[in-house]
Amino acid sequence: MSATGGDNPFLRPRRATRRLSIKGLEFGSQAPVRVEGMAKTPTTDVDATVEQISGLQAVGCELVRVAVPTVQDARAIASIRPRIGIPLMADVHFSAAIALEAIQAGSDSIRLNPGTIRHKEAALDVASAARERSIPIRVGVNSGSMQAKVTTPRDLPSAMADEALEFCELLEQGGVDDIIVSAKASDTLTTVEACRALAARCDYPLHLGVTATGPRLQAAVRSAIGIGTLLAEGIGDTTRVSMTAPPHEEVVVAWLILEALGIRRRGPELISCPTCGRCLIDLPSLVEEVQQALADVTEHLKVAVMGCIVNGPGEASDADVGVAGGSGFGFIFKDGKKLRKVPESRLAQELLKEVRAICNTRA
Amino acid sequence: MSATGGDNPFLRPRRATRRLSIKGLEFGSQAPVRVEGMAKTPTTDVDATVEQISGLQAVGCELVRVAVPTVQDARAIASIRPRIGIPLMADVHFSAAIALEAIQAGSDSIRLNPGTIRHKEAALDVASAARERSIPIRVGVNSGSMQAKVTTPRDLPSAMADEALEFCELLEQGGVDDIIVSAKASDTLTTVEACRALAARCDYPLHLGVTATGPRLQAAVRSAIGIGTLLAEGIGDTTRVSMTAPPHEEVVVAWLILEALGIRRRGPELISCPTCGRCLIDLPSLVEEVQQALADVTEHLKVAVMGCIVNGPGEASDADVGVAGGSGFGFIFKDGKKLRKVPESRLAQELLKEVRAICNTRA
Repeated sequence: MSATGGDNPFLRPRRATRRLSIKGLEFGSQAPVRVEGMAKTPTTDVDATVEQISGLQAVGCELVRVAVPTVQDARAIASIRPRIGIPLMADVHFSAAIALEAIQAGSDSIRLNPGTIRHKEAALDVASAARERSIPIRVGVNSGSMQAKVTTPRDLPSAMADEALEFCELLEQGGVDDIIVSAKASDTLTTVEACRALAARCDYPLHLGVTATGPRLQAAVRSAIGIGTLLAEGIGDTTRVSMTAPPHEEVVVAWLILEALGIRRRGPELISCPTCGRCLIDLPSLVEEVQQALADVTEHLKVAVMGCIVNGPGEASDADVGVAGGSGFGFIFKDGKKLRKVPESRLAQELLKEVRAICNTRA
Repeated sequence: MSATGGDNPFLRPRRATRRLSIKGLEFGSQAPVRVEGMAKTPTTDVDATVEQISGLQAVGCELVRVAVPTVQDARAIASIRPRIGIPLMADVHFSAAIALEAIQAGSDSIRLNPGTIRHKEAALDVASAARERSIPIRVGVNSGSMQAKVTTPRDLPSAMADEALEFCELLEQGGVDDIIVSAKASDTLTTVEACRALAARCDYPLHLGVTATGPRLQAAVRSAIGIGTLLAEGIGDTTRVSMTAPPHEEVVVAWLILEALGIRRRGPELISCPTCGRCLIDLPSLVEEVQQALADVTEHLKVAVMGCIVNGPGEASDADVGVAGGSGFGFIFKDGKKLRKVPESRLAQELLKEVRAICNTRA
């Protein structure tokens, strides 16, 4: 894998952006596509927030956003920041004073919504403080909280891009060049079009996400279509999946999207068949067993768990290692070649033995 | 919503296809994009298969495929078919004799894999029987079981399209015009490129799916990217999501993809925020409560469940009805306007009251 693009031959070249870094973490087309998360705790609850951020980092979150609705939340950042291992972004709405307080408290970056920070002077005050501390700003437009009232759905994406870029221009007037920009809507295709418009009209790194996506599976589907479509076109430098679910699941889904496109990988990739009437072993249990057993493996390798000899090893021929089920038994295969026949009860452990062996060879 | 396209302004026009029907169910660009499922029971277990198909139909499956690895499975179709309410497709590999047996048993359609039915005479035998009974054939190429050995990943999509279309030509020589075609790979973007190639080179209705996608969330992500990207481009006439999970979940995810793109809708659409430090009510529980309470509503309407007044009703302004949380209370809103303030404990029931009222008005 290249650091900036991916190894899939059908990915379009990454859109070139300016580069910036947040507390040493690089963003833009010279850097890997980043995975962000958001803490869902009250930011004033420092211990709970630190613990949640640590959990997010453990599943691959590289930048965490915290909600900062009050001055107290802003001040809590001073206590949170020294205790976490990834950079932090303060999410501020309505009040420049709170944004200034968050910067004062040591926030590594600020997200502002042009729809909720409406006064030019307010934006320039924050820009001035951000410039002084060399803190990047994400300009995040949200279809639900725009200044412009757009009544024709077809006009919404370009209006979102307009509103974002006007705000960016204001920040640049205030001396801030380190800007990440985003435009999110709860409609997936509106989000895609708004990001395409942004990509065509600026060289800021783009943050991708679909907003208000709903419960787990619906959110995964909408985020995958929206973020996935854009990334496949080479658009997007950092992502946040938003779900009504525990925050670590958002990070997991973001990684699944990157992995599906061959852009970045983290840990083993599981190839498994849906099972059908041909499958004579209990595949879902086997998949679950293998998935849990692999949870601590950070090495990337492809592991196949296939229900029958029709699909595996054929469909899983690019897997490093795998099993194909038979009747009460299965075959272990490696690099597309059958290794040995194993009783069903020992399939998982024999597969894991091979996985560990590969990891040891590579280590 | 139009029957054939969708109501989202950013959907590309649907690719024009020839039309065909399977037991009265129309396929192609003149018909809605169909949702397929696959039974995961042994087809010889007639009662279990009938029960599973009935469950699939209940969540919106319009065509069901069953695995037919043996002559006994083929014969079981004669007992299954009179007991189910949706058309059936027999999935046959390796043996023309089994395909003929499935047609004899009354299967409404047959899926053949050019990689596993390799003899020209075998294909022509099946074509002849299918023509006699006016049974459509799906030609489904799978990257894992191709005749051609393709070693360069970049060449795979066009090779998949070649193999599918050569087989279609053979069937046409045998007198079969009612053909649906598909090309699936476990790599998402390879699948997308293969389907784009098919779309450009034929007018057969296209069946979309990504294969061997793995466990639930990973499968939802890969299917959503693959199927979603194509549908957004106007490509695709029927879909099957494949997951290592119970079969009804595959149907649910297929509907979520169609809904995310505004192509088709089934039942209430839930808009909910991911929650953050601004959210002072227990939103995930509320979402779950609302989701369960709405399970029997088939009317399409948008219901928003938002954690705070920053995001809702703003972000959910296109919702028919919704709630926005406060501290121990929330607001009910309808068509973007606040209706009333309600204690948190009564939010779900007050929201549902509004939903029922809307359904009654429309009924």
